[in-house]
Amino acid sequence: MAEHDHTTLDENLRAEELREIWSLADSDEKVEGFRALSFLEAEALFLSLDTRAQGELLTALPHNERQMWLRQLPPDDAADVCQEADLDTREALLRLLDEPTRKEVSALLAYAEDEAGGLMSPRYVRLRPDMSVDEAIKYLRRAARERAETIYYIYVLDAEQRLVGVVSFRELFGAAPERTVRDVMRTSVLSVRDDLDQEAVANFMAESKLMAVPVVDGEGHIKGIVTVDDIVDVVREEATEDIQKIGGTVALDAPYLEVGVRELVRKRAGWLTVLFLGQLLTATAMAYYEDAIARAVVLALFIPLIISSGGNSGSQASTLVIRALAMGEVRLRDWWRVFVRELGTSLLLGLILGFIGLLRVVLWPTRETLYGEHFLLIGYTVSVSLVWIVVWGSIAGSMLPFVLHRFGLDPASASAPFVATLVDVTGLVIYFSVATLFLSGTLL
Amino acid sequence: MAEHDHTTLDENLRAEELREIWSLADSDEKVEGFRALSFLEAEALFLSLDTRAQGELLTALPHNERQMWLRQLPPDDAADVCQEADLDTREALLRLLDEPTRKEVSALLAYAEDEAGGLMSPRYVRLRPDMSVDEAIKYLRRAARERAETIYYIYVLDAEQRLVGVVSFRELFGAAPERTVRDVMRTSVLSVRDDLDQEAVANFMAESKLMAVPVVDGEGHIKGIVTVDDIVDVVREEATEDIQKIGGTVALDAPYLEVGVRELVRKRAGWLTVLFLGQLLTATAMAYYEDAIARAVVLALFIPLIISSGGNSGSQASTLVIRALAMGEVRLRDWWRVFVRELGTSLLLGLILGFIGLLRVVLWPTRETLYGEHFLLIGYTVSVSLVWIVVWGSIAGSMLPFVLHRFGLDPASASAPFVATLVDVTGLVIYFSVATLFLSGTLL
Repeated sequence: MAEHDHTTLDENLRAEELREIWSLADSDEKVEGFRALSFLEAEALFLSLDTRAQGELLTALPHNERQMWLRQLPPDDAADVCQEADLDTREALLRLLDEPTRKEVSALLAYAEDEAGGLMSPRYVRLRPDMSVDEAIKYLRRAARERAETIYYIYVLDAEQRLVGVVSFRELFGAAPERTVRDVMRTSVLSVRDDLDQEAVANFMAESKLMAVPVVDGEGHIKGIVTVDDIVDVVREEATEDIQKIGGTVALDAPYLEVGVRELVRKRAGWLTVLFLGQLLTATAMAYYEDAIARAVVLALFIPLIISSGGNSGSQASTLVIRALAMGEVRLRDWWRVFVRELGTSLLLGLILGFIGLLRVVLWPTRETLYGEHFLLIGYTVSVSLVWIVVWGSIAGSMLPFVLHRFGLDPASASAPFVATLVDVTGLVIYFSVATLFLSGTLL
Repeated sequence: MAEHDHTTLDENLRAEELREIWSLADSDEKVEGFRALSFLEAEALFLSLDTRAQGELLTALPHNERQMWLRQLPPDDAADVCQEADLDTREALLRLLDEPTRKEVSALLAYAEDEAGGLMSPRYVRLRPDMSVDEAIKYLRRAARERAETIYYIYVLDAEQRLVGVVSFRELFGAAPERTVRDVMRTSVLSVRDDLDQEAVANFMAESKLMAVPVVDGEGHIKGIVTVDDIVDVVREEATEDIQKIGGTVALDAPYLEVGVRELVRKRAGWLTVLFLGQLLTATAMAYYEDAIARAVVLALFIPLIISSGGNSGSQASTLVIRALAMGEVRLRDWWRVFVRELGTSLLLGLILGFIGLLRVVLWPTRETLYGEHFLLIGYTVSVSLVWIVVWGSIAGSMLPFVLHRFGLDPASASAPFVATLVDVTGLVIYFSVATLFLSGTLL
């Protein structure tokens, strides 16, 4: 990344260094470093911080600086900072804003952080349809100097504040000055409802390739706009949450290195303990087959192999389905299509692994010393179990996200470890059932 | 999503239906449905398709329509379509473009798809520093009607085409008409190198919160711009790839339901087979402990529990580190800090699981029938093994992404199943070593 800067080299270094050590620095060091920067450098650093870090820095700054920096934030970002703060701090922060901004921010605070209303900026530009293009451009010139979030999409409202059209600045700018806004606007306006989930907003914007989309309430009144730069953050945040859940952790909500060890343990111990309690069922299942193992110890040798093959194919299936659901590529009603595909796919995968497993047992040089005279039957047991377990793992892994989704839970909670645990217990039952089938009368 | 549309309701329904069934339809149905739409609906549908689907549709259309639709694409998107096509088709597609666009697209084809040069649009707006604001606005009015990707950021170049400043359209528009561009431009211009990886471009843009960033070559010459709407696609695509890899699959590169079963098997069988071959080592390790199991069958009961606890904690650690690396929150040189944190965290997690494991064995009502007179020693074995295995799983899981990254491989390949497999084999060794320690002279 090249940087041509009119601040001094020294300042640049300082800002860069400060950013580097930000996650390690304590509150005093951050404030000290931040106040040593030029205004431009400090502004760039402040605006690049995430909401949590902005809130921390603001809290640590003296009153007049806190006010100055809070007022640098656009209302949607200021609302995010307020939303993260506890109720008392929130009130104190709101009092630092000027009157019109305070009203805007308070209105935004009524929305949940993760829905369209919580993402939007109230500072869109609105026009009446009967203005001339020339009048509109003059008006926008004023708006550009003032407070609009973007002047690049302009929304046309009727007398009841309902959205009737949209025109890009560029179209307006390129149009003949004496035409009216009505002549140049598009009446086909894509919009999102204010209570739409932010992941759905992101999918919608990615598909429509718009730079901004208006947010409307149930009556079609425009409440604000969501711009594509906010969507980048949403997409990153949602993907991080999903990845962390897939890994079997509660979402961290902060950069890894900035989460304390105590917090890290708290966020990981919950799921790990639940999974462990689930895994304890394997000990119970195993106890049930203790006699079988005592009679044919050789069966124990393949237990890790068998159960982890089920877990691995289950992880594959669940992560593919979780991501496809999150991207909007697969919907709840597609479960049957997914089921059929997974059945076919996993049968083939199971046959591949089963075949390798069979070869491993029956062609192993020391097969008779290791597995005894019935090595062929052991081979069949391992091989047939693998086919069933891979099929079962894939079906369970692919259907679980749908089940969670159906009951209003996050499909990403069908984490790889969760699916593996689920499949482990049932995998043991499959393995020992198949073993009984093949080995009754010989080893068992 | 509300839609106010001046196309007929019927057409809307058709477009919506077509989008719904797109992944299921065959080529003829797609063409037929597409040609039945109004131009505006067809345009919206075409532009919303991903690169692969655009290429397929173009190939299926008759020559004159193919030309018309290809020319609707901005040069960066046209270049993506050409890049996906085989060499012959690529030449044929290029011939359909008008001369200036063909030059632009050919220049873009020189870049890899996943670097800044492959993302950028060559249609940025450039100005000379000594133009007046008024002249600049007049010039932009022309550019707005013509071919610029965006007129919202304007780049100021010196006589050698080097980037010397940037001004947003809004700043220019709000400035006094008689001032020069030099007066109103910012000389502190953030830019990215043309060979920078697209994930790094995305992290950079997310942090800087810019709507567009110029792309420069090694000599500081501007080559194009990357706009934030392209970044949304990059972030989604990269997250999907990472999630699929974490689940132990090769990246699908297409929506789940559009990948054929044969392809799905091919993409999953590779890793699954590698993991299976790795798991075969568990059978070898187990054979080594066969005598121990024969003497103390009770040891076998806890094998699934022990090894999956290692796998689960390893999955947690590896996914957290993979995501932190991808987000740029953690860098290669931070490995030691991660190591220390994981050591502390996993020790606590191990103690929690070890404690529950101990209680499970020593407080179980039928402990003496199930585990024999030495149930307390069995409890210690399980408990101490769990501590070590959770620590080992977390350390292996958190360090593996760094190792892969260090050797130029994708950290996301340290998938949950891969880590689980790695930890399974070593977990068995840990478990039986601890068992030998506690049970020698009694059960072993």
